[in-house]
Amino acid sequence: MSKGLLIVVSGPSGAGKGTVCSALLAKQADIKLSISATTRAPRNMEKPGVSYHYFTKEEFIEQIGDDGFLEYAEVYGNYYGTPKKFVLDALEAGNDVLLEIDIQGALKIKETYPDGVFVFILPPTLKELQKRITSRGTETEESLKKRLGAALEEIELAFEYEYCIVNDEVDAAVEEMEAVVKAERCLIKRNHERIHNYREEEFYVEA
Amino acid sequence: MSKGLLIVVSGPSGAGKGTVCSALLAKQADIKLSISATTRAPRNMEKPGVSYHYFTKEEFIEQIGDDGFLEYAEVYGNYYGTPKKFVLDALEAGNDVLLEIDIQGALKIKETYPDGVFVFILPPTLKELQKRITSRGTETEESLKKRLGAALEEIELAFEYEYCIVNDEVDAAVEEMEAVVKAERCLIKRNHERIHNYREEEFYVEA
Repeated sequence: MSKGLLIVVSGPSGAGKGTVCSALLAKQADIKLSISATTRAPRNMEKPGVSYHYFTKEEFIEQIGDDGFLEYAEVYGNYYGTPKKFVLDALEAGNDVLLEIDIQGALKIKETYPDGVFVFILPPTLKELQKRITSRGTETEESLKKRLGAALEEIELAFEYEYCIVNDEVDAAVEEMEAVVKAERCLIKRNHERIHNYREEEFYVEA
Repeated sequence: MSKGLLIVVSGPSGAGKGTVCSALLAKQADIKLSISATTRAPRNMEKPGVSYHYFTKEEFIEQIGDDGFLEYAEVYGNYYGTPKKFVLDALEAGNDVLLEIDIQGALKIKETYPDGVFVFILPPTLKELQKRITSRGTETEESLKKRLGAALEEIELAFEYEYCIVNDEVDAAVEEMEAVVKAERCLIKRNHERIHNYREEEFYVEA
């Protein structure tokens, strides 16, 4: 069986990567979602094992020692990480795995797993990103400027990815994600064994 | 306007690249087909400008001198080539261009136009290829063996391409072609300008 694809999706906050990923998973039931681990406390509606796997700090640090994460980071005193075993087991079983993670995490994974499919979700324009951010709630002008500045810096890092998908309309963005996955499976570099196999076939010429 | 994609399709005789390309063009009317030029005489049902552009030997050689071909070759005393102007004009106008050409021609184009999308059409198995070849008409055992041997040698050259599509069922193969085209348009390397453009946007923060 051929190994599954590791699909790594990032993008600035407000670009809608969560929406695109959820819609992709709803259409393609055979893609497995990797759930991150964290030491921060669950919030309102979050469910263990769905939003995150919740670890104590001790558990998390032990997992780090056991090389249990594909990548991890400490942010404002809390740890976040991608559990390695789930991802590698699913890939080995031939399932595609979707990771929706921040850019720093994605770039760490790219170092150790360059065969992954690295997709960057973009907003149509900064102006549209601003609309989406402000429609969410109460941003001060100051914090809005900060967020747009941060988004612009993140967008510069798109050049480290292989694909970009502009999330103007969710359905179109999901179709592009599906096309990327389908096309990646057709890459020669992922089909060496298949191509070598013709050589192994016995000729079947009837007399 | 962004430039179109140069889609170059090859594969061993009998793999069905013609069928796949025709079905793709029927679905995607905006893809332009490049018509090859040849000095050989038109056959039964062939139409000038549809099957081939028919050139005299003198015309063809003059075009070679004018750098009028993306690639050309002489086969059994006849010339075949890909007229350059049609392809480059269409790409410049933002149209995708499909080239269905032999492997030698494709590899020449890859040297001068590495940004092309190089797709190799494969039969499901050699046995299936044999079935397709024999169902076409009267092959002697000798000529069949020769053709299968040639196909096997050609398949080795798939490693020079970027994508392979196994033509087991035409509709599925066409969907893979479409996915490849859609995914290629999402490649970061084809979207540098778009990504740089966010920087040029003026911030739009209302007071």
